[in-house]
Amino acid sequence: MKVVIIGSGNVGTHFAKRLKESEQTDIIQIISRSLDSARRLARTIGATYTNKLEEINSDLDLVLLAVSDDAIESILNQLPDTIQDRIVCHTSGSVPATVASQKFKNYGVIYPLQTFRIGTEISWEQIPVFITASNRRSENTLLVLSKRLSDNVEKISDKQRQSLHLAAVFVCNFPNALYAVGEQICQTQNLDFRHLQPLITETADKIKETHPIDAQTGPARRHDKKVINMHLKILSNQSELVSIYQALTRLIQEQARNKTEKPRYF
Amino acid sequence: MKVVIIGSGNVGTHFAKRLKESEQTDIIQIISRSLDSARRLARTIGATYTNKLEEINSDLDLVLLAVSDDAIESILNQLPDTIQDRIVCHTSGSVPATVASQKFKNYGVIYPLQTFRIGTEISWEQIPVFITASNRRSENTLLVLSKRLSDNVEKISDKQRQSLHLAAVFVCNFPNALYAVGEQICQTQNLDFRHLQPLITETADKIKETHPIDAQTGPARRHDKKVINMHLKILSNQSELVSIYQALTRLIQEQARNKTEKPRYF
Repeated sequence: MKVVIIGSGNVGTHFAKRLKESEQTDIIQIISRSLDSARRLARTIGATYTNKLEEINSDLDLVLLAVSDDAIESILNQLPDTIQDRIVCHTSGSVPATVASQKFKNYGVIYPLQTFRIGTEISWEQIPVFITASNRRSENTLLVLSKRLSDNVEKISDKQRQSLHLAAVFVCNFPNALYAVGEQICQTQNLDFRHLQPLITETADKIKETHPIDAQTGPARRHDKKVINMHLKILSNQSELVSIYQALTRLIQEQARNKTEKPRYF
Repeated sequence: MKVVIIGSGNVGTHFAKRLKESEQTDIIQIISRSLDSARRLARTIGATYTNKLEEINSDLDLVLLAVSDDAIESILNQLPDTIQDRIVCHTSGSVPATVASQKFKNYGVIYPLQTFRIGTEISWEQIPVFITASNRRSENTLLVLSKRLSDNVEKISDKQRQSLHLAAVFVCNFPNALYAVGEQICQTQNLDFRHLQPLITETADKIKETHPIDAQTGPARRHDKKVINMHLKILSNQSELVSIYQALTRLIQEQARNKTEKPRYF
């Protein structure tokens, strides 16, 4: 399979390196706005490179767009008509596969559910990869390619992928913001934030075996008003944190109430 | 050291088993409101037991209270005057050490920073244990005892412990509530929540090497209004989740702004 990758940032780099490792994929070209960045990645994996979309090597089977959400549509529209029968796919959680439907028949999405950082090793085998495709031919190709990335590949719809992306914000970006609040609270009392690490790890690990709703502990869950009021007093000069503390305390109590009313899901 | 443990719930059980393992501590008695529960724990570790505070074995060096926050003061007041010169300590994050000062001279707190569940193995070695004491004699004893629990023992003040407890709510209870939201979103789309586990683990692990504020990713951090609005639309029939999404999005953007204004802490 001959692949052209557009984008040489975090996601493009991790895709390129992983596909190169699998040895069954021929990455023939890297295209990036930044010629330097394209060259750097292309040299790592032994591909050609360019910063001009019209110079795309049309001897390709699939174009993989690993670019920011906002750039996807415009790049698709700029691709030359000579590759209109090939398969194009992007890697975004929130942009529908159908963004390509005006110009292409064979299109889809390969969405790896993980946060990527350049310079950090990623355990691809364990990353869930979700594919969406416009037809059987595209689906088969995306399946073959995705199985070279991960052992955990699933087909989903645009709607499912968008909800998955939303869920990812709730379990990754938002908890990370709360870790930052934890660090800030530690700093006000000259406490080392690293003391909280075993607790953070245990909280994340616990839900491998327990529904989060069943794993909940703490003053909100216990309706311990004395402790809650003491906490609000400590936060009292940061009104935004007071609101967040109160909203999440209500959420925990609401979740506990619904738990007893509803049947368990699985 | 002869120790009497009051309380045979989660915390009491984990303390008793760990101290028994260390073999240098003689747990002479378990006291609990529930005689059944006291008997069960006492038999596991080879101690006597009772459900009456006045039957406390006064041949003791230290009393460890592993009971709910609300019960601490009342239990301390009910302890017989014959043990007034011994060391008493509790294990609460939020109750000041000085709760014991009316009746006792030698008192303190041993606060292990972890969520405890009965029936689950705890890696005590890695749990940070914080001690607070009323005087040198009590401090030395609490230090000796705590080092039998964990390799990671620190002295802190009441105020520091209360802030640590607040930080623990932000990095444990609140993220867990957000994991539950993630599960709920998955369920609405028939998606398996376990798909999110690698992302949750990576998010918790990442901050072992990076300040949370530097590890942030996602639509809020990128000020990606299109994606944020799509997410709010998906949540639109759950007004409480909409408010939480908006508040945490503002928090992330606020954190990013303050990051560039302030010097880094360490």
